[in-house]
Amino acid sequence: MTEMMTRIVLAKRPQGSPTPEDFRLEEAPMPQPGAGEMLVRVVWLTLDPYMRGRMDDAKSYAAPVPIGGTMEGGTVAQVLTSDNPKFAPGDYVLTHSGWCSHAVSDGKGVRKLDPAAAPLSTALGVLGMPGLTAFAGLHEHGRPKPGETLVVGAATGAVGSLVGQLAKIYGLRAVGVAGGAEKCAWAVEELGFDACLDHRAAPDAGALREQLAAACPDGIDIYFENVGGKTLEAVVPLMNQFGRIPVCGMIAWYDLGGLGMGEAPGPNLLPRTWRTILVKRLSVRGFIVTDHAERFRDFISEVPEYIRDGRVKYRESVTHGLANAPSAFLALLKGGNFGKQLVKVGAG
Amino acid sequence: MTEMMTRIVLAKRPQGSPTPEDFRLEEAPMPQPGAGEMLVRVVWLTLDPYMRGRMDDAKSYAAPVPIGGTMEGGTVAQVLTSDNPKFAPGDYVLTHSGWCSHAVSDGKGVRKLDPAAAPLSTALGVLGMPGLTAFAGLHEHGRPKPGETLVVGAATGAVGSLVGQLAKIYGLRAVGVAGGAEKCAWAVEELGFDACLDHRAAPDAGALREQLAAACPDGIDIYFENVGGKTLEAVVPLMNQFGRIPVCGMIAWYDLGGLGMGEAPGPNLLPRTWRTILVKRLSVRGFIVTDHAERFRDFISEVPEYIRDGRVKYRESVTHGLANAPSAFLALLKGGNFGKQLVKVGAG
Repeated sequence: MTEMMTRIVLAKRPQGSPTPEDFRLEEAPMPQPGAGEMLVRVVWLTLDPYMRGRMDDAKSYAAPVPIGGTMEGGTVAQVLTSDNPKFAPGDYVLTHSGWCSHAVSDGKGVRKLDPAAAPLSTALGVLGMPGLTAFAGLHEHGRPKPGETLVVGAATGAVGSLVGQLAKIYGLRAVGVAGGAEKCAWAVEELGFDACLDHRAAPDAGALREQLAAACPDGIDIYFENVGGKTLEAVVPLMNQFGRIPVCGMIAWYDLGGLGMGEAPGPNLLPRTWRTILVKRLSVRGFIVTDHAERFRDFISEVPEYIRDGRVKYRESVTHGLANAPSAFLALLKGGNFGKQLVKVGAG
Repeated sequence: MTEMMTRIVLAKRPQGSPTPEDFRLEEAPMPQPGAGEMLVRVVWLTLDPYMRGRMDDAKSYAAPVPIGGTMEGGTVAQVLTSDNPKFAPGDYVLTHSGWCSHAVSDGKGVRKLDPAAAPLSTALGVLGMPGLTAFAGLHEHGRPKPGETLVVGAATGAVGSLVGQLAKIYGLRAVGVAGGAEKCAWAVEELGFDACLDHRAAPDAGALREQLAAACPDGIDIYFENVGGKTLEAVVPLMNQFGRIPVCGMIAWYDLGGLGMGEAPGPNLLPRTWRTILVKRLSVRGFIVTDHAERFRDFISEVPEYIRDGRVKYRESVTHGLANAPSAFLALLKGGNFGKQLVKVGAG
């Protein structure tokens, strides 16, 4: 009997919000490693908002997942067999095998993990790509200064929670925006945010703005942009002169199609946003983590210490079984996760 | 008989586009200089788009002109009497007396001009605030590199014409957008732009985008933003990765009220603009010239030479008589000027 692996492929491109029918669970024969290659079994799969963009056939910073192709994603995996001298059976590795149970790799871009140094799953979260995103975006484009005020959306997510905690460590006032009272309470009580506002409880951008104005008595110097939508609309008029907006994501707008390239209903908020950029002399800067790989060394020498001494906390939301990855991902896009969303694919 | 001076005051705040009724020509007794002060007569008044913002009672980087207050503006004037040891009768000076025939000054912020070095009017244009705006914005926020492509709107205006010519000197491809075939021909034939597109001949942003795409075969690295509106909408999708957008003005949107703070009809262009900022990793930076006063020394040591050797050309649009300043200003806001708009207020 042929050994089989499982994977989740993109069945069709979403129209607006993705649905379970956009994904398909498939079985396929176990891939066979060639010369210099290794076979790995996936332990952890990370789910991240950027994956929504890969489902659309729109020009972006990366190619879309083809129809019928395995959904893209970072994983922690264990080596089963290896013809690569750098990796031995039993090694745990960080790789980008996608939504699957097993994969073959030539070892390029694969990093060995030490399971004794930190829980393996952190390599996909606070010590991985989302963590570096927070760290690099804050330093390179936020340029934080003690005494300033930072606002971050998706404040309890993998990126936002580290952004706010780093801001506190660097001596800033940190104000979060998150969906739901439970998340907001955690941001303040556990993560140490100065305040966290529930965007779901605010009927519109104006109401959210009033709450933000009260929580940010000295205005906003840095808005770390993860969400777009109502939060952005609320924040912009509160920005201080020479404020910085690192643009990392805009999850509220992803379902407009093509990561926000579709037609959006009016009013047109571009003129007033552009006007504020001018008169407040704001700096708005899009970035993606792969532009800042050179920051990894600083990141990994600084952040693990904060975790060990308790100044940085993280939270994981674990879904069990690859078959449940699509529903977990759909929930993530609606803010249904609480902390870094992971899928436990295999034992380890 | 009391000697009189004339001035133009803000009669009321505009609703949408300003009208002649928003201004009032007044006579008033000649102001009397006190100790350490001087009396000047205005020779040249400059009209610039930023003045539109001063007419609104909206928070901006500068206070609005009060109702009944003299309209603000830079002038070249001649000293009539002086109790200030730094200035003697007959001296020509650059000052900020506003829309008036005479003014009293204590000499603060006033700079003496050498009428033999350059035509006096250039101190209000290519060698003045608009020139420094172009120079500082291009260097600080455009960060031009040889071989790149720059697009600038209001390409034959005081700022845009210098931006494009400097870009050519620095080895970039320079593409302008202007209103009307005559302006576009001048930008290419006289100023040396590689191309200049007539936004009035383009029925919508999509048509303008097609023309821009043809004129910018390697995409757009720098968009020097003077105009907003249709031009911005056309440009954004053509921006290259790591492109820069110095935001200097947005004349197409000024009549929305409060420099674009009023309600604008949909569709909402903010999501797709924000998305492009993210995926192309654009840098969008608002600035005003007074943030970059430290650049004046570099500017004034570099640009006059380009004028002398013919690499930078400039054009002036002169209206005669202070009483005609409002109509000239209203025409400027509609693109009716061709080159730097000036008012000849007095002989000299």
